[in-house]
Amino acid sequence: MLEELKRQVCDANLRLAAEGLALFTWGNVSGIDRAGGRVVIKPSGVPYEGMKPEHMVVVSLATGETVEGSLRPSSDTPTHLALYRAFGRIGGVAHTHSLFATAWAQARREIPPLGTTHADHFYGPVPCTRLLSAGEIAGEYESNTGKVIVERFSQLDPGALPGVLVADHGPFSWGDSPEQAVFHASILEHLARLAGETLRVDPYPKPVSRELLDKHFLRKHGPRAYYGQK
Amino acid sequence: MLEELKRQVCDANLRLAAEGLALFTWGNVSGIDRAGGRVVIKPSGVPYEGMKPEHMVVVSLATGETVEGSLRPSSDTPTHLALYRAFGRIGGVAHTHSLFATAWAQARREIPPLGTTHADHFYGPVPCTRLLSAGEIAGEYESNTGKVIVERFSQLDPGALPGVLVADHGPFSWGDSPEQAVFHASILEHLARLAGETLRVDPYPKPVSRELLDKHFLRKHGPRAYYGQK
Amino acid sequence: MLEELKRQVCDANLRLAAEGLALFTWGNVSGIDRAGGRVVIKPSGVPYEGMKPEHMVVVSLATGETVEGSLRPSSDTPTHLALYRAFGRIGGVAHTHSLFATAWAQARREIPPLGTTHADHFYGPVPCTRLLSAGEIAGEYESNTGKVIVERFSQLDPGALPGVLVADHGPFSWGDSPEQAVFHASILEHLARLAGETLRVDPYPKPVSRELLDKHFLRKHGPRAYYGQK
Amino acid sequence: MLEELKRQVCDANLRLAAEGLALFTWGNVSGIDRAGGRVVIKPSGVPYEGMKPEHMVVVSLATGETVEGSLRPSSDTPTHLALYRAFGRIGGVAHTHSLFATAWAQARREIPPLGTTHADHFYGPVPCTRLLSAGEIAGEYESNTGKVIVERFSQLDPGALPGVLVADHGPFSWGDSPEQAVFHASILEHLARLAGETLRVDPYPKPVSRELLDKHFLRKHGPRAYYGQK
Repeated sequence: MLEELKRQVCDANLRLAAEGLALFTWGNVSGIDRAGGRVVIKPSGVPYEGMKPEHMVVVSLATGETVEGSLRPSSDTPTHLALYRAFGRIGGVAHTHSLFATAWAQARREIPPLGTTHADHFYGPVPCTRLLSAGEIAGEYESNTGKVIVERFSQLDPGALPGVLVADHGPFSWGDSPEQAVFHASILEHLARLAGETLRVDPYPKPVSRELLDKHFLRKHGPRAYYGQK
Repeated sequence: MLEELKRQVCDANLRLAAEGLALFTWGNVSGIDRAGGRVVIKPSGVPYEGMKPEHMVVVSLATGETVEGSLRPSSDTPTHLALYRAFGRIGGVAHTHSLFATAWAQARREIPPLGTTHADHFYGPVPCTRLLSAGEIAGEYESNTGKVIVERFSQLDPGALPGVLVADHGPFSWGDSPEQAVFHASILEHLARLAGETLRVDPYPKPVSRELLDKHFLRKHGPRAYYGQK
Repeated sequence: MLEELKRQVCDANLRLAAEGLALFTWGNVSGIDRAGGRVVIKPSGVPYEGMKPEHMVVVSLATGETVEGSLRPSSDTPTHLALYRAFGRIGGVAHTHSLFATAWAQARREIPPLGTTHADHFYGPVPCTRLLSAGEIAGEYESNTGKVIVERFSQLDPGALPGVLVADHGPFSWGDSPEQAVFHASILEHLARLAGETLRVDPYPKPVSRELLDKHFLRKHGPRAYYGQK
Repeated sequence: MLEELKRQVCDANLRLAAEGLALFTWGNVSGIDRAGGRVVIKPSGVPYEGMKPEHMVVVSLATGETVEGSLRPSSDTPTHLALYRAFGRIGGVAHTHSLFATAWAQARREIPPLGTTHADHFYGPVPCTRLLSAGEIAGEYESNTGKVIVERFSQLDPGALPGVLVADHGPFSWGDSPEQAVFHASILEHLARLAGETLRVDPYPKPVSRELLDKHFLRKHGPRAYYGQK
């Protein structure tokens, strides 16, 4: 079952590797079937080379238990599930250790919107979570990683900010589909690199104005968008 | 009509992508038929893969209205038109969000001529515009982007400085043809990267002397040039 | 003899070059046959192109003398031998001058564990040796390079820290096999690059907590690991 | 005449482009026939694509006049000639605007020997020339570029330091042959990049000791070398 979703999730995982966002076995992408309450995700620690849709693992959104598949699901599965539960409109989640976004995560620093490239895709700074406590690390670590992300979004809209940095760890991103989650992982990586390069030219750059942020985000997103084709 | 110009504009757009100057659908190139008062430009938000000359859109230089083509023109079309109107000798315009030039634009800092590589192609610093006002953003944003570029060039020669940084946005470049506009986008990106790398070695580098700037620019450009073949 | 090990060592050397960890003839990988007391290593100064298993040189672990092969072994052979003698459980050693790890070695600075990417693979900072004394350089230089590495590990576990920076020189890494030694060379290079990029975003980054280091290293390594497949 | 040398010079120029050391038409390589007093060099401003041995230009070492070939020689020809005249044992010269070496040249800063990678190939800092005076720029500029290089080497051995940075311009390198000149251009670019990356990790890195410099340079070069095969 869920053959089409498995294919999408597998393709999205392969794109992570092809775009250089994931080295070795790092990184994972999932997709959700909301109607059936099922999440399809990459198996844990399996190389991208030779990965096929039938290797994808199906887990229950409610319990996290494996419903289908002979391999173990990604060890980050509980983080994905926490995001699907909290963000009711997302259809895919991606996690990477991509170089530039991870550098910002390791610096525990949100990525400020320094130009229109950022404003076209993220409607504000890319948020960064707090560190997990010793207890949260010792306990249900991967679930708690999801918890601190959701906590960070208590006043934020995951539809306008399709990604986050987990402090000392790396980026998570999401979207309408697994494919769009990877697109946002790629955008986030580019914005992190561009912001880092801007720091080289000016160590204390100023963010864009509210007006420019509105203009660029809203000309691409929402009811008054006029970018692209109808 | 304008089949040859459409081909040139399409080729130049594809080169933007091939040279890594444009990711996803970002970036656009146009060309002009001065005699007919027509500008040919990339459609808005269309991927580079599979792009063909017949997808190019023809707009009126005078009114900006679409004269031919079933797709919407690039949302940056009014900026291109403003440049064609103010700079009467240019034949092509390119806009990108290329990494290194955009970093300088986000730092709101002109690129100083730090060596002969720069002096060979830009006869002075690569200028950076002022920020648009809130009113200019809320109003005819894309036209006003053209306006601040033209304003920045009130005392400058667009033939000697074939590109500009729009503050908090990214680079625009131009040339005799769409192809040359892309060549200058590529040069500008390289100069931005080279200047950024120079900052790493010396945070306060000194620009070249007036004599060296003259020597290198004028041995490649103008009546006394002696670089290249006759 | 040792045909299988020669093939493994040759393949591992070729992977060094293919992954961009070694330019020109720089870099070398070896493997060991513990039962026979033999080490197989790349010949000195031979290009990667056209390298074949039969070019590999067999030397004695005890004496360092060439036992088989018509070419001279890598000039770094005595360093490899010192590591095999001191670290009784390793099966392969790799040495590179890879860009980012070498930069840290030239800065004589250990690479701190700034995030989970590091903690997944190195159970603490990547150590850096002291400089060799003038006498150690003038004497048995390559053996003494091995000596300072072993000295640096007097209180450290080479199984938990599978690589080191030799001050003013570059990285050495090791593993269960020649292939895994190269894998760790690649990981070390990535961690060096990621840490360098983090310094750009925050010049004084803080290392991960002890709890996070434990969590990530131990979920991948040792008896309680739960990453990957059974 | 000189067909073999033309082929070598053409191949070496093509390698400049293939290794990413020269963009567009930037960069040039020459070779010398000492017996005949002839220098073979790339034509000026000609793209690398489609370049063939028969396009190479033959000039007189003594007078600089074109002896054979229908194209203009590289505008940097007088610099090459000055080097061949002053450095009697070199067989090839290369000039590039490669990114990292040019950044150091623009910073007007010699590249210190920060590790063994440098010491293996350059027996001391990569020197940087003084700036040319206004008169030297206005006069025989390209010859004077050669003059400041030669001046810089008045107390240095071009056999032990096979390259130089021309302040505010870029690197020149040389060797026994056109091929080796390009090899040294490639080494110099790598050393510049590695030193720049080291500055990121430690803004005030210390050079290698005299003993380590001697050890590494002399184990690869001169009568007591023991690196590589006999």
